[in-house]
Amino acid sequence: MAEVNFNEWKNLDLRVGRVIDVENHPNADKLYILKVNIGEKEPRVIVSGLREHYSIKDLKGKNIIVIANLEPAVIRGVKSNGMLLAATNDTQCVLLEPDKDIEPGSKIT
Amino acid sequence: MAEVNFNEWKNLDLRVGRVIDVENHPNADKLYILKVNIGEKEPRVIVSGLREHYSIKDLKGKNIIVIANLEPAVIRGVKSNGMLLAATNDTQCVLLEPDKDIEPGSKIT
Repeated sequence: MAEVNFNEWKNLDLRVGRVIDVENHPNADKLYILKVNIGEKEPRVIVSGLREHYSIKDLKGKNIIVIANLEPAVIRGVKSNGMLLAATNDTQCVLLEPDKDIEPGSKIT
Repeated sequence: MAEVNFNEWKNLDLRVGRVIDVENHPNADKLYILKVNIGEKEPRVIVSGLREHYSIKDLKGKNIIVIANLEPAVIRGVKSNGMLLAATNDTQCVLLEPDKDIEPGSKIT
């Protein structure tokens, strides 16, 4: 892949988010609709394809990493205002997390 | 912050890395020089300001998250070929990690 410079990286608003609610997407078997506290007044609604990899119980209360300034996308009729970061290979989908507890909204640098 | 589109995000090569060696930077009290397996033939040399937050023992063998295509920077005389991701606030610096074990080089999506 082509090199990126530090400014391109700094344009991304990556933050710690804490999952406060999870429900099944009504129109898609593999998708959840999450509400995530990213240090703002209102939680973010984020649609994510985690249903084959994490249970609702796994996710509630969990600290995750969110791209907070990605342009919104409508996914099967639900507007997603952000994206979760996960590591993937042919069989696994593994969420990223901070390795110690830190408050929601903390910036990734 | 301004919105970014999905292509801007895709230009970044973020991967899981496994720390295979750590030493103190000879010219800077707060810096480590890490060697990190990111799924390539040779480990990456990455300079990082983690010395006040993590011991060498904490770091060796740890899975971390690396920007693999950031333009290299010379930091106090040592060339750094990448950057580790951490969440920060006024007092904490907390590394990001995958929440389950996954092979070095796995892409962040």
